[in-house]
Amino acid sequence: MQLSKRLGAEIFGTFWLVLGGCGSAVLAAGYPGLGIGFVGVSLAFGLTVLTMAYAIGHVSGCHLNPAVSIGLTVAGRFPVRDLAPYIIAQVVGATLGAFALELIATGAPNFNLVASGFAANGFGEHSPGHYTMIAALVCEVVMTFFFLFVILGATDDRAPKGFAPIAIGLCLTLIHLISIPVTNTSVNPARSTGQAFFVGGWALDQLWLFWIAPIVGAAIAGIVYPLLTAESEARKVAAVAQ
Amino acid sequence: MQLSKRLGAEIFGTFWLVLGGCGSAVLAAGYPGLGIGFVGVSLAFGLTVLTMAYAIGHVSGCHLNPAVSIGLTVAGRFPVRDLAPYIIAQVVGATLGAFALELIATGAPNFNLVASGFAANGFGEHSPGHYTMIAALVCEVVMTFFFLFVILGATDDRAPKGFAPIAIGLCLTLIHLISIPVTNTSVNPARSTGQAFFVGGWALDQLWLFWIAPIVGAAIAGIVYPLLTAESEARKVAAVAQ
Amino acid sequence: MQLSKRLGAEIFGTFWLVLGGCGSAVLAAGYPGLGIGFVGVSLAFGLTVLTMAYAIGHVSGCHLNPAVSIGLTVAGRFPVRDLAPYIIAQVVGATLGAFALELIATGAPNFNLVASGFAANGFGEHSPGHYTMIAALVCEVVMTFFFLFVILGATDDRAPKGFAPIAIGLCLTLIHLISIPVTNTSVNPARSTGQAFFVGGWALDQLWLFWIAPIVGAAIAGIVYPLLTAESEARKVAAVAQ
Amino acid sequence: MQLSKRLGAEIFGTFWLVLGGCGSAVLAAGYPGLGIGFVGVSLAFGLTVLTMAYAIGHVSGCHLNPAVSIGLTVAGRFPVRDLAPYIIAQVVGATLGAFALELIATGAPNFNLVASGFAANGFGEHSPGHYTMIAALVCEVVMTFFFLFVILGATDDRAPKGFAPIAIGLCLTLIHLISIPVTNTSVNPARSTGQAFFVGGWALDQLWLFWIAPIVGAAIAGIVYPLLTAESEARKVAAVAQ
Repeated sequence: MQLSKRLGAEIFGTFWLVLGGCGSAVLAAGYPGLGIGFVGVSLAFGLTVLTMAYAIGHVSGCHLNPAVSIGLTVAGRFPVRDLAPYIIAQVVGATLGAFALELIATGAPNFNLVASGFAANGFGEHSPGHYTMIAALVCEVVMTFFFLFVILGATDDRAPKGFAPIAIGLCLTLIHLISIPVTNTSVNPARSTGQAFFVGGWALDQLWLFWIAPIVGAAIAGIVYPLLTAESEARKVAAVAQ
Repeated sequence: MQLSKRLGAEIFGTFWLVLGGCGSAVLAAGYPGLGIGFVGVSLAFGLTVLTMAYAIGHVSGCHLNPAVSIGLTVAGRFPVRDLAPYIIAQVVGATLGAFALELIATGAPNFNLVASGFAANGFGEHSPGHYTMIAALVCEVVMTFFFLFVILGATDDRAPKGFAPIAIGLCLTLIHLISIPVTNTSVNPARSTGQAFFVGGWALDQLWLFWIAPIVGAAIAGIVYPLLTAESEARKVAAVAQ
Repeated sequence: MQLSKRLGAEIFGTFWLVLGGCGSAVLAAGYPGLGIGFVGVSLAFGLTVLTMAYAIGHVSGCHLNPAVSIGLTVAGRFPVRDLAPYIIAQVVGATLGAFALELIATGAPNFNLVASGFAANGFGEHSPGHYTMIAALVCEVVMTFFFLFVILGATDDRAPKGFAPIAIGLCLTLIHLISIPVTNTSVNPARSTGQAFFVGGWALDQLWLFWIAPIVGAAIAGIVYPLLTAESEARKVAAVAQ
Repeated sequence: MQLSKRLGAEIFGTFWLVLGGCGSAVLAAGYPGLGIGFVGVSLAFGLTVLTMAYAIGHVSGCHLNPAVSIGLTVAGRFPVRDLAPYIIAQVVGATLGAFALELIATGAPNFNLVASGFAANGFGEHSPGHYTMIAALVCEVVMTFFFLFVILGATDDRAPKGFAPIAIGLCLTLIHLISIPVTNTSVNPARSTGQAFFVGGWALDQLWLFWIAPIVGAAIAGIVYPLLTAESEARKVAAVAQ
């Protein structure tokens, strides 16, 4: 598939991830009495990826996340030359998604974007549960590590075919079930950046952590997973010879 | 399959979508202390589509929604001549589903259909969160766009086989997780029409938006998805030649 | 597979349906502050069927429900001679499941089985939302109709292979999301009978409805689904000739 | 695959099970107003297994649980010689997962690990609902029995291919939906041990039950499932001869 079409797919996909995930948080999480809470937001984030992975997995691979593209590159599954265009497309898509969310959210009476937090990621006093910067850093590194570990495993040639979008989407749901109280959950620098552009101030000041930690976690998984699962050369030869 | 049987399947399927989705909202969402809230309603709407897509996907394609039929037609995946009968069947099914729901709901003491809202779609003062008409319009267009985008992608020949009902059903769950507070979520003119017949008044007055916005969103997706994902002719020839 | 092993599988499966579904309702639904509510109970009922369908679908077909066995018989998919043994096995399994649940539930301080309702099915003053007998009857007939409709469709030769347990299990989740407030949701005479044995009194008095309504709904689906989806003989011949 | 790599996979997988499952309980279950409750924790535990089963099922079989390894051994599906290394790897992984969770959890103001319970398993006064030791014992035996029953069934050669991670993961979700109030749900001695190391005191005193009960339940399933589902030799011969 041509690069321009793959980038188009990444823009639409990341738009959907942000509008769906952050949108559920901003519009529906705290609705009085009937709100979806962190369970609903976790489900929403995961389902943006599950749905898009079936819709555009065959077009762009459906990364929707710079950490995913980098982790796949480290693991030797994605070409370095496509990395920068993919990351730019993801940030563009996330920012457009945040813009669409702003359009809708400001249609409610008394909505205040900055006061709402707009689902931006943060630590310390901007962590939902006031977790320290160190806890946030550890959490984002570890969560993104396992996200990439599952992505690399579920898309491995030896894994069952067709199920990867379920495993990967629901892994993102799981990550949110654990870590929304810590950082509002990023594991995705593009998603953090789109929201930070609209919130400004503290969200931009703290944005560095949501680039560094996910990328570090993803890169480690890109090294560890292949080491852990590579069959020895002797076995491969034997398997081919059969 | 004969058209009469396909239309029968669409009637049963849309009946189930309305009875299941709107039924969960009317009967169970606000049950004191144990109610299912917007998370449960979102899950219910999605599962009506997931279950019916496995049950009648091989009969009628399981559209259950005029916007879906129109989006597929625009994308060249559904014949224009079947469009009117499908849409009529969907509205009939939705209305019968709303009737069955009324039969059950009125069996509760003190149930007042109009006061309950009966899960009808609305904007302004009839939006659950009092969102403006413009916000409702943007929301319904964008949500239906992505619904069709996922439908077109997940049923693409290049997508994994058999998984489309999961992707499409859970996409409808996701859409509800985001947008119930805005419009009670339509993305489906038949579903809106069935409920509006029973609520009357404001629900009929506002019904136009829930025909126009979903159809516009679906039609745009029917144009965009094929453009985004078409492989160039040269590549297709090369692939066939291999 | 020998009948004795198939009956053994039905006993274990129905045991699990009752312990899991009714158990989640009795033990966890109303836990203060963190309870699973009707959403969790709905999920639990569906997952008992989803898990067992993958575990014993290849042994007994995993009916776990007299209405299912009867609906399949009416549709010509299950032999009449096996019907009575299957139904007996299902009632035995459900009763043993209810017994196991009693063993566990009475381990809590101040647990009162009768006062708790023990997840028995009821109408009128024993309906969670005090729905009338007529509403309960309509609800159980319609819900079981669609349950069988989805079962017959998802296990149709033309449906995608391997996905039926997901469609059927999540259909039971959906049915509970809609109808717990009406009757506590049966759609399964064995499940109702097991709990009624332990609650006694009103639960036994009202048990007739939870045999008649599900069986009627299932039988109608067993007639309607084949009519709706049968390809004409001429088409079948044409398809074979290709 | 070499044993060292399989053990590595078990360590990472059990780490994820504990960090994800217990982490969601400790960090997110009781968050004021928006917390995930027992539904979210149940989903999280199940998704740790679903995601890892797709990621490392092809490496180590993804047991992540001494009771699973023992049940598979009793059923003749896992070699006795690998049992001890697997169990040690699982306990190491669980302990490291608990350590990572401590690192993150202590980043919140006023977090008190022992007072929080740290998702350790218990009975009597340490059961969430104060269930007796006998009820806890029955519950853990029965729940683990059905967990292994579903694992053995869903991975049976006659079950649909590729779906086992969904069936098994969601079975763990179901088990938690039922039994968190009874024991905080173990069915996994490694998961209990990791948390008990950090809580100490009562959690270590009661740890014996969470080794004995799951292993007994798993071993019974390892005997029962093959008996229930074995086709007679005569039939097998007939099938092969066809």
